[in-house]
Amino acid sequence: MATLGKIAVIGAGSWATALAKLLLGNNERINWYVRRQERIDDFIRYHRNTVYLSDVTFETDRIDFHSDINDAVADADTLVVAIPSPYFKNEAEKITVDISGKNIVSAVKGLVPGDNMIITEWFCRNFGCNDRNMLVIGGPCHAEEVALDHLSYLTIGCHDIAKSHEFGRAIAGQRLKTIYSEDVKGIEYAAVLKNVYAIASGMVNGMKAGDNFKAMLVCNAAREMRRFIDAIAPRKRDICRSAYLGDLLVTSYSLFSRNHNFGAMIGKGHSVKAAKMEMEMVAEGYYGTQCMHQINGTTVKVDMPILDCVYDILYSGISPKKAFEALSEKFS
Amino acid sequence: MATLGKIAVIGAGSWATALAKLLLGNNERINWYVRRQERIDDFIRYHRNTVYLSDVTFETDRIDFHSDINDAVADADTLVVAIPSPYFKNEAEKITVDISGKNIVSAVKGLVPGDNMIITEWFCRNFGCNDRNMLVIGGPCHAEEVALDHLSYLTIGCHDIAKSHEFGRAIAGQRLKTIYSEDVKGIEYAAVLKNVYAIASGMVNGMKAGDNFKAMLVCNAAREMRRFIDAIAPRKRDICRSAYLGDLLVTSYSLFSRNHNFGAMIGKGHSVKAAKMEMEMVAEGYYGTQCMHQINGTTVKVDMPILDCVYDILYSGISPKKAFEALSEKFS
Repeated sequence: MATLGKIAVIGAGSWATALAKLLLGNNERINWYVRRQERIDDFIRYHRNTVYLSDVTFETDRIDFHSDINDAVADADTLVVAIPSPYFKNEAEKITVDISGKNIVSAVKGLVPGDNMIITEWFCRNFGCNDRNMLVIGGPCHAEEVALDHLSYLTIGCHDIAKSHEFGRAIAGQRLKTIYSEDVKGIEYAAVLKNVYAIASGMVNGMKAGDNFKAMLVCNAAREMRRFIDAIAPRKRDICRSAYLGDLLVTSYSLFSRNHNFGAMIGKGHSVKAAKMEMEMVAEGYYGTQCMHQINGTTVKVDMPILDCVYDILYSGISPKKAFEALSEKFS
Repeated sequence: MATLGKIAVIGAGSWATALAKLLLGNNERINWYVRRQERIDDFIRYHRNTVYLSDVTFETDRIDFHSDINDAVADADTLVVAIPSPYFKNEAEKITVDISGKNIVSAVKGLVPGDNMIITEWFCRNFGCNDRNMLVIGGPCHAEEVALDHLSYLTIGCHDIAKSHEFGRAIAGQRLKTIYSEDVKGIEYAAVLKNVYAIASGMVNGMKAGDNFKAMLVCNAAREMRRFIDAIAPRKRDICRSAYLGDLLVTSYSLFSRNHNFGAMIGKGHSVKAAKMEMEMVAEGYYGTQCMHQINGTTVKVDMPILDCVYDILYSGISPKKAFEALSEKFS
């Protein structure tokens, strides 16, 4: 593990917790940045993250906890970043130590709000990181199911194939298999878009539009995703592979999906504001919808009727019924 | 409607019933072949199919019922064949009148058992029908949801585009939209294969293998479907379109799917025999699995690990746990 070196997990949500658990299966020690000291104290006292995936126990003496992100990052060679996108920038901007030579593994399923940029690109631009040191973790993989030890698969994306395999070995386990890809950008955008489509899917469920209609939505979403990704990051890719279609499916059909459940509330008639207040965890697709809508409207400009539909409902006050009626005319 | 002429519905199951209802929305009269006279008598008495979709009412004075298939077929120009595949051949072989010049619309989601042939091909071979008069109806479309008036989409496949549009107009309605394709063979094979994958999907549910694993299964199934169809009926096609991926999704994720529920019973530990006995309606995928396994093993010979897995469980006595463990190594 010469090139990966010491690994630091950045973030303390459910995905960060699942990834830390996986990494400890193959790594003697890890650093872990947890923002609040009292959370760290609880973690050490109870040997578990008391807030997320609290059934999962940890050997805390193998974890170097830090409530200062720079302490967590300083002696690490590889940063596994798993902060929900709305909070990402606020945290990442605290980094003052030089990380330009480090590996960055993005496990953020969203864009940097405001900057409308994927995570790996943002690190390269803002911290002078090297494109070949950028990795991304793709699904389909709900943290909750990894915690339950359900057989799951992750896609590791990196332009440096040796490095992606090295990270694969650092995270794989009996119940966690790895798939490899060089399509870093495509996987990151897919992870953002699938959240948008999961909200749409939830809305369809909430409106009780039926399984036929939902299947139409999801297969149209797969094509819409392909249109966008092929335009913004052209390369040969098969949208039916697990990091794209697989991730879309698990998020659109699983009840573990927060984005899906957020959409379902709105589909049932709750206001967007009420749905936001009701969700205990942030639905990343809410922010992702706005970012993607801006990126597509200003730069990529491909036909994205589902994204537009979700945007209209979340940000323009159009009713789900009206928006989906218009959308239904565009399905093919 | 000069070329379609009079339409006869062949079959009295749920799909036949849903299609007859749709056709009566645009056609003044239809013929309808229902094998058992007492079913016809009940139909006329109660203005509904008392066995399938019994909430749907019919203006029976606009239907010419026939318990003799030749009477139903004789003065019709277009036969909409919607008999479950296991019973198909037995019924179709009763036809003695000349149907070589008629349009055949296959709504059978299976192969002709024994002959291992798609329905349209079988009509061409056995009755001298013309390839350009062959149509197929593709999903995603559960009969139950059409009956519930949920917005649904059908794909009409025909080499003669004018004819597919004409049939589209004959069947479309406010809640039923139509999509057109020239890929008759591909749509027919997709309809068969998706039943096999729905059984696999149900098994995964029954085993409680989780949403992550199910998403892996379904996205691998989409690619397996593409491999097979592209090999047996080469042409440019997009597997993400509704007649392929959409149909796969609705069957794999909907609880209306009999194939899914059949698989779920087996996944839960019931024997194949017990699951077959428990099902009130036939799970077409059970027969489809054997047919497809033969076709692929003898002719097409592409890599189909999911088909093989379902076959091993249904026909070779391999336990679902063991078969899926082997399969899980092959996912990508």
